[in-house]
Amino acid sequence: MTIHSTAIVSSAARIGKNVHIGPFTIVYDNVSIADNVIIESHCEIGVSNHLSEGKNLFIGGDSHIRSHSIFYEGSIFEEKLVTGHRVTVRENTKSGKNLQIGTLSDIQGYCSFGNYVRLHSNVHIGQQSIIGDFVWIFPYSVLTNDPHPPSNIMQGVTVDDFAVIATMSVILPGAHVSKGVLVGAHSLLKGSTEEDFVYAGSPAKKTCKTLVIKLQDGSQKAAYPWRKHFFRGYPVDVVKNWEKIASETLR
Amino acid sequence: MTIHSTAIVSSAARIGKNVHIGPFTIVYDNVSIADNVIIESHCEIGVSNHLSEGKNLFIGGDSHIRSHSIFYEGSIFEEKLVTGHRVTVRENTKSGKNLQIGTLSDIQGYCSFGNYVRLHSNVHIGQQSIIGDFVWIFPYSVLTNDPHPPSNIMQGVTVDDFAVIATMSVILPGAHVSKGVLVGAHSLLKGSTEEDFVYAGSPAKKTCKTLVIKLQDGSQKAAYPWRKHFFRGYPVDVVKNWEKIASETLR
Amino acid sequence: MTIHSTAIVSSAARIGKNVHIGPFTIVYDNVSIADNVIIESHCEIGVSNHLSEGKNLFIGGDSHIRSHSIFYEGSIFEEKLVTGHRVTVRENTKSGKNLQIGTLSDIQGYCSFGNYVRLHSNVHIGQQSIIGDFVWIFPYSVLTNDPHPPSNIMQGVTVDDFAVIATMSVILPGAHVSKGVLVGAHSLLKGSTEEDFVYAGSPAKKTCKTLVIKLQDGSQKAAYPWRKHFFRGYPVDVVKNWEKIASETLR
Repeated sequence: MTIHSTAIVSSAARIGKNVHIGPFTIVYDNVSIADNVIIESHCEIGVSNHLSEGKNLFIGGDSHIRSHSIFYEGSIFEEKLVTGHRVTVRENTKSGKNLQIGTLSDIQGYCSFGNYVRLHSNVHIGQQSIIGDFVWIFPYSVLTNDPHPPSNIMQGVTVDDFAVIATMSVILPGAHVSKGVLVGAHSLLKGSTEEDFVYAGSPAKKTCKTLVIKLQDGSQKAAYPWRKHFFRGYPVDVVKNWEKIASETLR
Repeated sequence: MTIHSTAIVSSAARIGKNVHIGPFTIVYDNVSIADNVIIESHCEIGVSNHLSEGKNLFIGGDSHIRSHSIFYEGSIFEEKLVTGHRVTVRENTKSGKNLQIGTLSDIQGYCSFGNYVRLHSNVHIGQQSIIGDFVWIFPYSVLTNDPHPPSNIMQGVTVDDFAVIATMSVILPGAHVSKGVLVGAHSLLKGSTEEDFVYAGSPAKKTCKTLVIKLQDGSQKAAYPWRKHFFRGYPVDVVKNWEKIASETLR
Repeated sequence: MTIHSTAIVSSAARIGKNVHIGPFTIVYDNVSIADNVIIESHCEIGVSNHLSEGKNLFIGGDSHIRSHSIFYEGSIFEEKLVTGHRVTVRENTKSGKNLQIGTLSDIQGYCSFGNYVRLHSNVHIGQQSIIGDFVWIFPYSVLTNDPHPPSNIMQGVTVDDFAVIATMSVILPGAHVSKGVLVGAHSLLKGSTEEDFVYAGSPAKKTCKTLVIKLQDGSQKAAYPWRKHFFRGYPVDVVKNWEKIASETLR
């Protein structure tokens, strides 16, 4: 365990073996960090507020939280969480394993992620979002929740397994992005969708099956489902069993 | 008063009673902080530049500035300013009381806010913006000011009392969002608007009266004006006197 | 040279004359900082990862990096780099002189900038982007690179000299923004463009010559090319020789 001399770590925090905590980072009381976790500099881990109620923040083993990130207490992340810089994650966030959260992303809490979800930079996940396994969300996309802001009514967005939300899309409250759907860049999506179709535009319309998009590598293969050709960073046993893993996740 | 031992606070700064300053925070010279203010960790308060001219930064009483936030000198905030994390606020910003600034929001200075304005996460307020009372602006919205960038001409945006700008909208230079207007998500708004109407699309068009939008709680009540049903966080005397308070603000 | 007592500066880093390093800033090993550079507080300079391979980060003379910024090792910036706060710049970024990077901007690396490029706040530059001289990119604009995300195929965006990308635009993979083009706010641009034309909308269409846009100062002069009337912050010898400087840049 290496805790930098300038880090401020509560004696109440439970810190596993082989944990590294960088300079100018603060770890508060209600935090459990499993083994082999790296927390870089200038972070705040386990921030409390009037909604977090002193609940524990659990960071699973082999996780890596990059610098300037802020996590509230009251959330659970299974193993191998990886973040970019300056991510903000509020209370009551629950995630399966291998979640990736890109630089500047802002997770508002009261939401859940399956396994192997990848958020690129600057993604905003509103409260009450429910996100499946192997989902991809690209920069400057926002999952909203208030159908007539401001109000007390929250209708979270649901994103099913293997779905992809491209850059700078807004998903409106209560929308359902079905399995394998591709939401095109700069879209405004409302309502329900059909599995393995493309939705694009503002407002987004169903445009075609994802299958008809060709890989631009000269192969004439289909670009979707992406899990047929894109494996970077996934363990071999995952690549062999995408469907099985997704179907077995308890939600 | 509790100033963390790692905080760097100028002896020239005027600090009120019962002020809390967190770890790794810097408070510069030209700063006045009123009583009962919390400034969390990793902040910079009172940054100077060649435009701020050594003018004072005033943070009103009972304010709460969350971690990693940066305020320049030369701005005034009345009581009960509340910020999220990593907000950036440049010089020559002037605000009434109870301003809320969400995480990652960026206020470019040379702008004014009435009372009880609420900016959600990641809102960008361009210079020369004039914002009334009880305004709401949602994530990834941008108020612009240059009609033909880059140029030396600035036409700020005006947003009147009780108006709402939904997620990921761009308000073009010189646009006027009138009282009670709702700008729909993912819109591009130009020019003038009519009170209590909805504008949506890119470019945004007048679509209907806000009154016709129904609250999605089964009540069949109108969702707008929102001040008829949404009171969270507003003092009782405000809720009883919205119109009076708005009409009395000096601008 | 003034290094704040709380800064952590590697003895392996090469630091020029008259360099200022602020509080709570970290400078890692593989960093060369030329003379007269200011690095403000809470920064991380020279972060390594598995892709940066221990290559050097070079920050040219007379540069100014504002607080909370993060630079990876393995990039080169010629003289007079100026950044806002909280910028993130990954490895393998190469820039000419006088690059300005606005607050919250995120440069993903593996990209190049000519001279005198200005990125406003919150701009996202995807990998493989190639940006010319005197380019302007405004807030919340994103340069993408994956034609069918997620995939292993990268088609970077090219932006030629003097081009302007207005607020909240998405430039799709492989798009080419030609010399002097103006992409309107809130646009989604695909494919190639014709020099000195305006492209606007989602999807963006060619709308008119930039020349027909009038300066809104009553002069009836053309607003474009902007270099005919906008000179703020450019040295006199630059203003006299825009074209010559642009044509001489090696790319």
